[in-house]
Amino acid sequence: MRLRNKPGAMDTIIANPQYILTDGSQWRGKWQDRFEKEQPIHIEVGSGKGQFIVEMAKAHPDINYISIELQTNAMISVLEKQLEEKLPNLQLLLVNGADLTDFFADGEVSQVYLNFSDPWPKKKHEKRRLTFKTFLKTYETISKPKAQLHFKTDNQGLFEYSLASLSRYGMTLNQVWLDLHHSDYEGNIMTEYEEKFSAKGQPIYRLEATFNNK
Amino acid sequence: MRLRNKPGAMDTIIANPQYILTDGSQWRGKWQDRFEKEQPIHIEVGSGKGQFIVEMAKAHPDINYISIELQTNAMISVLEKQLEEKLPNLQLLLVNGADLTDFFADGEVSQVYLNFSDPWPKKKHEKRRLTFKTFLKTYETISKPKAQLHFKTDNQGLFEYSLASLSRYGMTLNQVWLDLHHSDYEGNIMTEYEEKFSAKGQPIYRLEATFNNK
Repeated sequence: MRLRNKPGAMDTIIANPQYILTDGSQWRGKWQDRFEKEQPIHIEVGSGKGQFIVEMAKAHPDINYISIELQTNAMISVLEKQLEEKLPNLQLLLVNGADLTDFFADGEVSQVYLNFSDPWPKKKHEKRRLTFKTFLKTYETISKPKAQLHFKTDNQGLFEYSLASLSRYGMTLNQVWLDLHHSDYEGNIMTEYEEKFSAKGQPIYRLEATFNNK
Repeated sequence: MRLRNKPGAMDTIIANPQYILTDGSQWRGKWQDRFEKEQPIHIEVGSGKGQFIVEMAKAHPDINYISIELQTNAMISVLEKQLEEKLPNLQLLLVNGADLTDFFADGEVSQVYLNFSDPWPKKKHEKRRLTFKTFLKTYETISKPKAQLHFKTDNQGLFEYSLASLSRYGMTLNQVWLDLHHSDYEGNIMTEYEEKFSAKGQPIYRLEATFNNK
């Protein structure tokens, strides 16, 4: 998806360093200092326009959330939401998810969210999928032992791939949903994409998995 | 599913001890002696009427197959097929799948198939599902190290449960299909139930997993 260019986006980002960073490396190992309270840090890799993580931050004030997104034009939407909400437990990081070890110390993160990640359906693009083993290694490195990864998608191929990829990496799949919106799962917070897509009646897939290798 | 009583079923079974046993314990560790050739043994736990395992045995003469089924009225259909085919690589065992360690020595089996197992949807019946951990332990005990389990079902709840149950047990999910009949999987052999069910257009789920604990 190519997003429309938003004029002045970079200016707004630079004007709000209390909420958003374009290079988080100086906060590596010190993320708690950017939040009002010291409490577990959950990150979302690929936040899109940010509805999920902003709503999560509102619903769970006892968690510190970091929204990570590569695309400036998506991130500006997250920032606009945060400029309205001014949540003390939400920070934004405009960087590439492949480089997370540059921005987080080992074990700094307690939980990782992936929502409606780009499916990269072609086999030759497997390495770009956010559930490819090199990404899993990155998430695990910056996470506490036995941290959890929560993943949602509408893409059948990506979900099939991810179940096997996580399992082969050595993660435990604790629970799997093959039709989240018709299950008894409570407290689901939808992304913008999920709201639009689920209206078509196709299933939303979800999993919760645990890292085991550290 | 309660099957219609077939008159004379037990007589036919008793008359054909070269193909079917009602107590396999005397062959424990010696199953290869019941086949024409010594080659890997694959078992299907809950064969139903047997179309899958009979067709598999015809398609793969280099594998020895054992059809395991608890219900006499289902098993008589497997036997009728075998009396017609007289396959040298197919044996039938009319016993309870929970007791497989009584009938197979440790490591005697190379692969396990489960097809359209009873979903037992109520939580209180979880222990009866053929992918519950006690069954997995049984299959693993009688299997060679790193043996595979192949599982198909149309039941979404059972598949969700099984993905997590296998993973929590320590198995690796090598590959997962969320819509087998619309995938590029080749060589699928359908069960009687699968043929009827897939005509309704609903997805068939499939997985291949590896045992890791021995």
